[in-house]
Amino acid sequence: MKEGPIRVVVIGGDAAGMSAASQVKRRMKSAEVVVLEKSKYVSYGACSMPYNIGYGGNVDDLVVMSAQEFREKRGIDVRLFEEATAVDTNAKSVHVKNHVSNREYDIKYDYLVIATGARAKLPDVEGVHNEGVFTLKTLDDAKAIKDFLYKNKPKRCVFIGAGYINLELAGNLKRAGVEEITMLKRSDVLMNEYEEEVDEAARDILNKNGVKLVTGIKVERIDGTTVKTNKGDFEGDIVIIGIGFVPNTEFLEGSGIELDDKTKAVSVDRYHRTNIKDVYSAGDCAMLYHRILDKYIYLPSGNNANKTGKLAGANIVGANEQFAGTVGTRAFETFGLGIGKTGLSLKEANEAGFDAFKTVITAPTKAHGYPFQSKMTVILIAEKKTGRLLGSQMFGDVPSVLRINVLAAALYANMTIKDIQGLDLVYSPPFAPVWDPILVCANQAIKQVGK
Amino acid sequence: MKEGPIRVVVIGGDAAGMSAASQVKRRMKSAEVVVLEKSKYVSYGACSMPYNIGYGGNVDDLVVMSAQEFREKRGIDVRLFEEATAVDTNAKSVHVKNHVSNREYDIKYDYLVIATGARAKLPDVEGVHNEGVFTLKTLDDAKAIKDFLYKNKPKRCVFIGAGYINLELAGNLKRAGVEEITMLKRSDVLMNEYEEEVDEAARDILNKNGVKLVTGIKVERIDGTTVKTNKGDFEGDIVIIGIGFVPNTEFLEGSGIELDDKTKAVSVDRYHRTNIKDVYSAGDCAMLYHRILDKYIYLPSGNNANKTGKLAGANIVGANEQFAGTVGTRAFETFGLGIGKTGLSLKEANEAGFDAFKTVITAPTKAHGYPFQSKMTVILIAEKKTGRLLGSQMFGDVPSVLRINVLAAALYANMTIKDIQGLDLVYSPPFAPVWDPILVCANQAIKQVGK
Repeated sequence: MKEGPIRVVVIGGDAAGMSAASQVKRRMKSAEVVVLEKSKYVSYGACSMPYNIGYGGNVDDLVVMSAQEFREKRGIDVRLFEEATAVDTNAKSVHVKNHVSNREYDIKYDYLVIATGARAKLPDVEGVHNEGVFTLKTLDDAKAIKDFLYKNKPKRCVFIGAGYINLELAGNLKRAGVEEITMLKRSDVLMNEYEEEVDEAARDILNKNGVKLVTGIKVERIDGTTVKTNKGDFEGDIVIIGIGFVPNTEFLEGSGIELDDKTKAVSVDRYHRTNIKDVYSAGDCAMLYHRILDKYIYLPSGNNANKTGKLAGANIVGANEQFAGTVGTRAFETFGLGIGKTGLSLKEANEAGFDAFKTVITAPTKAHGYPFQSKMTVILIAEKKTGRLLGSQMFGDVPSVLRINVLAAALYANMTIKDIQGLDLVYSPPFAPVWDPILVCANQAIKQVGK
Repeated sequence: MKEGPIRVVVIGGDAAGMSAASQVKRRMKSAEVVVLEKSKYVSYGACSMPYNIGYGGNVDDLVVMSAQEFREKRGIDVRLFEEATAVDTNAKSVHVKNHVSNREYDIKYDYLVIATGARAKLPDVEGVHNEGVFTLKTLDDAKAIKDFLYKNKPKRCVFIGAGYINLELAGNLKRAGVEEITMLKRSDVLMNEYEEEVDEAARDILNKNGVKLVTGIKVERIDGTTVKTNKGDFEGDIVIIGIGFVPNTEFLEGSGIELDDKTKAVSVDRYHRTNIKDVYSAGDCAMLYHRILDKYIYLPSGNNANKTGKLAGANIVGANEQFAGTVGTRAFETFGLGIGKTGLSLKEANEAGFDAFKTVITAPTKAHGYPFQSKMTVILIAEKKTGRLLGSQMFGDVPSVLRINVLAAALYANMTIKDIQGLDLVYSPPFAPVWDPILVCANQAIKQVGK
């Protein structure tokens, strides 16, 4: 380490960037930490945007901590409206453009953190930037949607894509006054990464809530707010595009910082170091270690952005810690149905070379005789030969699906189905029945493999 | 194994007994299975009784499966009102008394399962059998309480003891029309097995709901429905005693079947075999293997009764399986507050020879910006030297406290705090914040031990 205080430059001021910056300052008071953020926001709860749209409230309430607070409370030099346009890893400098003053300058770094996140993917067709056509990734997107809802009072929404954000948003748009919802999906299933039982449950709840789902669709053009497809025209008053994310890494071209061939996310190791010395990357612009697959994947996710940002910051000041790895845990809600997943689907498991099977059960979530009853479905996916758990999916009411975390812990610990059967889970009427649905599924899985 | 069908006699027809009986028949159709049950009920959801009392409904709805169904559907010879009064392990026979006909007879067994459960403990004072004085352990108890509530419309209830059943029942008695509740506790804390933070939260919620709690009480006598104590008289219209359980094992005296010295529960190994060949025991009359303590404890609990009964039945027909062990997971609700525990308390950990510390945090249970917010408190107890998790306690709203199962899984897998920090738990606004309260606590614990 050089003499005198080090300077850490962080590109990007959301979850990963601010976590990295904060961690450096927390562990090394003397470090100079500069954060370059091209928008006017740092550190916000993006995942709550659909609910903010549905239930109302100020979009600014989603900001967790302002740039000013980071400056004053944590001593971080946050520079808003400043975009990093290039990195020179030989000179150890970043070229910056200020979008208010148009001033451009170079800043030297001792350590660099690339935390530029991802942006909404757009289909390669005309009309994606029409008035009334939106994506939902940033606070500005949320504001634009809310303004449009308020001014135009759209009655018909056409969704392009059926990812979890669109599924969350569908229910919330109904809350906000949209009456007719059509959801267009390119593939024939609603959710590719889930088992068919889960897909069916999601279709059912959409159907029950009057959402028209059309699969096998190829969007050809957006004309005003009418979506032209191979299966005809879908007229909306508002169009929402949600078909995935793209990492913001184009500005790294020619920097020598290695990107993943397929996803163009920054390649990192489990310390979140890139291939270039003193350059780290974290959050939605970077690859992520997957514990079950034992390889790096691209999975934009707020919690992993926070974790890997924190880790990168800690490692810059010598923590020498590895990322434990994701197991791909996620959950979302649509029209009151909770859906959760952790680990691999059966298809993903078999594609990864495991000889896997799955067990599906539906069971009560509360004790026999408790006056408030509900049911949930639990799916366990495991290796045939060893019984090793590879994944789980579940659906039911939202509180019940929090159980997915138990399987996330089981995956972390490489548990077998037999281990899961041995877990000492709560039995108490308002919480769970004498055989928790997880145990019911484990018992069934054991029977299924003939033990 | 002898030639011809084996006969398995099961003493006791609730959770453990019927699980054992069912498991034998499921695995060996030819086996003759006789269940001796002294009451008129088998297999009921006893834990839901407080809620049945509070919300109303028929007590018989708590029966999961009737004796007749067990006979017809599973081919089990269930004999109601028949009590085993002695066991002759040399002759391999049980002496039975029928409480309806008064007929007495001996029945021979090839294998015996002792599953007589436990009964409510009573203080050694006068008046415990007065009219208006109750315990709550059996369906008949629940019926008696409900009849009394209906006929006498008591306005004041005095609880002797503050175990989880009384805490659950307190809120439910209010629902059922009781206006004044006083709770008398012998020791100075409300709940001995919990951390002081949890004890305080429970006291607070009782206080807010008008329950008068008096600790450090010695009950001297019950006079009608007035409880006379060293701190004066407590007048009630109904008295409920809940101070623990006693295993029903007196009838085994002289049988040679070994009981635990201190608790008088049947001594078993992890296969739920007793010291006598071909004699098994399971459920609330038997000891239970504790995974963290690596010794046998007495812990009456419906889920473990089901599990160990099933295990004993399976082992009789050759399964050769060990009980995975309890980690003491439990949860209950009182006036809307959920309280959960798994593993050891700090005191229990230190008494068991661990050099332990604890970390306490209070954190939001939902994502920043999600319109419905709540907070919960999570406590982790771990070994100082290794960081190994030894226990957890938590309180908050009921759905949030289902998280205790994650720590139950962590305990099963011998995770350290560092492992818990690495868990990939759900982040999704209606489910959990970006840092789940469990992770917030793990992060804090790591800081606390200086890493």
